[in-house]
Amino acid sequence: MDDDRAPRRGRISRRALLAGAPAAGIAAGIGGLALARTRGSSTPPATAGAATVPFHGEHQAGIATPPQAHLQLAAFDLTTARREDVIALLRAWSLAAARMCAGDGAADPLDPAVAPADSGEALGLPPARLTLTFGFGAGLFARDGADRYGLTAARPAPLVDLPPFATDDLEPARGGGDLCVQACADDPQVAFHGVRNLARSAGTTAMLRWSQAGFLAARAGDEPLTPRNLLGFKDGTNNIDATDPAAMRDAVWAGDESPAWMRGGSYLVARRIRLRIEQWDRDPLADQEARIGRRKASGAPLTGAAEHDAPDLDAVTDGAPVIPSDAHIRLAGMSANAGARILRRSYSFADGVDALGRLDAGLMFLCYQRDPRFGFIPVQERLAAHDALNHYISHTGSAVFACPPGAADGGWVGSTLFGA
Amino acid sequence: MDDDRAPRRGRISRRALLAGAPAAGIAAGIGGLALARTRGSSTPPATAGAATVPFHGEHQAGIATPPQAHLQLAAFDLTTARREDVIALLRAWSLAAARMCAGDGAADPLDPAVAPADSGEALGLPPARLTLTFGFGAGLFARDGADRYGLTAARPAPLVDLPPFATDDLEPARGGGDLCVQACADDPQVAFHGVRNLARSAGTTAMLRWSQAGFLAARAGDEPLTPRNLLGFKDGTNNIDATDPAAMRDAVWAGDESPAWMRGGSYLVARRIRLRIEQWDRDPLADQEARIGRRKASGAPLTGAAEHDAPDLDAVTDGAPVIPSDAHIRLAGMSANAGARILRRSYSFADGVDALGRLDAGLMFLCYQRDPRFGFIPVQERLAAHDALNHYISHTGSAVFACPPGAADGGWVGSTLFGA
Repeated sequence: MDDDRAPRRGRISRRALLAGAPAAGIAAGIGGLALARTRGSSTPPATAGAATVPFHGEHQAGIATPPQAHLQLAAFDLTTARREDVIALLRAWSLAAARMCAGDGAADPLDPAVAPADSGEALGLPPARLTLTFGFGAGLFARDGADRYGLTAARPAPLVDLPPFATDDLEPARGGGDLCVQACADDPQVAFHGVRNLARSAGTTAMLRWSQAGFLAARAGDEPLTPRNLLGFKDGTNNIDATDPAAMRDAVWAGDESPAWMRGGSYLVARRIRLRIEQWDRDPLADQEARIGRRKASGAPLTGAAEHDAPDLDAVTDGAPVIPSDAHIRLAGMSANAGARILRRSYSFADGVDALGRLDAGLMFLCYQRDPRFGFIPVQERLAAHDALNHYISHTGSAVFACPPGAADGGWVGSTLFGA
Repeated sequence: MDDDRAPRRGRISRRALLAGAPAAGIAAGIGGLALARTRGSSTPPATAGAATVPFHGEHQAGIATPPQAHLQLAAFDLTTARREDVIALLRAWSLAAARMCAGDGAADPLDPAVAPADSGEALGLPPARLTLTFGFGAGLFARDGADRYGLTAARPAPLVDLPPFATDDLEPARGGGDLCVQACADDPQVAFHGVRNLARSAGTTAMLRWSQAGFLAARAGDEPLTPRNLLGFKDGTNNIDATDPAAMRDAVWAGDESPAWMRGGSYLVARRIRLRIEQWDRDPLADQEARIGRRKASGAPLTGAAEHDAPDLDAVTDGAPVIPSDAHIRLAGMSANAGARILRRSYSFADGVDALGRLDAGLMFLCYQRDPRFGFIPVQERLAAHDALNHYISHTGSAVFACPPGAADGGWVGSTLFGA
């Protein structure tokens, strides 16, 4: 659109980041592909999206990180029989992830005679707070009873298979997986680029099983706001405060019930929840609010006036509870679940239209917890049995992953498990 | 995440935009749903996304508008036999679209005893430059030979059915449609909200046929940049300058070959182009650049040094053209196509993984033109026959729509056709 055909070499050279080997190959018709996305700018502008989240650290990034605007979640099936291949893959993933999270390409440029080491669609884009979070599914520890990689004894007790729930309408192609990568960024192309380049480096060791994109409107300009899901309601008002170390230690980071290699990690439960958009949109406002337990516009509990007022679950009017007995916030809340808490990190999705002309849209529900047996599972058992929202939702995908602790500079995620 | 449970009424009341009928219904457990998204703020911040694009005007917005970051394109099948219903739908769509593009809800709030007039997920979000652009498919003018709405004589000559192309691998569920809505916004939730609420107001008059989301990284902070597609190459370098009235008049806005009701409108060709990501990522850099005709990093033509250098199609080296005879930019460019030009407005898409573990991703190619017979069709015939990219792409969806001119304040898009 900005079709300025006059050469703008000064701007181009800064933006296109054509670096290294000056003129080498240019005359021969072959340009060197520089992979630094943001480095090398002589006068970097104060760019939206310039912020980075370090890949290395005590915990993996992307769990306590304030949610970015876009998700690309991917699960992989391991296709190798060799433990060394898995180790090599995880090493390569950490190396590439650290580079991409810093705003660089997945790998150094290679000879023009071979395939580019980075697919290139994020060249020139800012890091956009990219995080790449790795997880291990049950299949890493055993598949069909076989201890493929000598890891069965190391399987964490909290890494359980989820029980069936009444709201399940699961599609196998949307769940499971031996490994997962959660890519989050404030730019969808940066998130996609992360998954694509890790998938590529998986080679013949692992293949993509499923991937789900999602979005989240969590900011209005510079102001954070509680995002709304596609029910139109604020979602996450009563979430765990990820900046509170005590709350995170109690509810999110793996504890004594996990093996040592998982300490500092967390368990991800991912559920693709399709919303029956068209039916919901015909439900009267008062009924929608009763099913949730909150006002649609303000997010206030039915017993309060402002979003962050604590719900009064005991309040009654005309002999009936103000917040109905089957309201979502009553059943999902701590008090109904013996204190079980999970850190929600969900994204909305919009995957087109089904064969009946209905939007295939909803919530990619993601939550992190210390132990799914005392986190997601009891909460979801209660919701599946009683939640007034159940008429409007179905769970179409499901997966659980043990996300190990972070790695120190130069280390790799998974080394605590493999003992390297 | 910002789990501040203390009441913050000052902030909440400004952000939640709970307006109108103070306390009415609150005591009764029913809150009024205010639909103004950005109005009513007592101290509006200088918010990213606050800019609006007017719905009304000589031309429909969303054609010459600088591309927003997100697309939600939707096509509908008309399910009514009555012309009056189509008119009523188009009137309602224009009314709702003008409101949503201004940052308001789709309609005024209604009684809490009935379904909310707006689905609500964009409450509190800025307008995000939302545009909603309407188009008419061939089926509006005749279906199976039947002149359903008395419009067959008004069908524009340029609204042709596309011929088959060698690159076609079309899925009927991803193409066609009697009506279309192109929603573009800098926030994907705002774009989705637009389509969802128009689909809802279609009632029994029309039903969704398909919808495609897309994204575009066209800015690094405040600086516009030529976006990269998922081939990793800059895409749109040599596009029409949409701010040049002469170029737009020549190539984009409907002219004398169109009926009077289309003057000021344009024809949209939409093609879902899946990329063979995994194969492309194994192609050597030099070969990728030869197939495109440009450098991957800089976007410069193989005969130049900077992105906006004009390609030298006559340059030869060792007796062979520097820009190969089957290079994409040679075949797609004006000089190969007797001057045919189209205004491209494409978005990338990422729709998960197919049954073989391959990313289902690519380019939702959108282009606007004065007459597809002298725009997209000859260009695509040439590309389908010779383009060196063909090994890496397939066209999985296809549609053509006549997008009428814009409407004046208070008017509705389509009134020029229906003579109202």
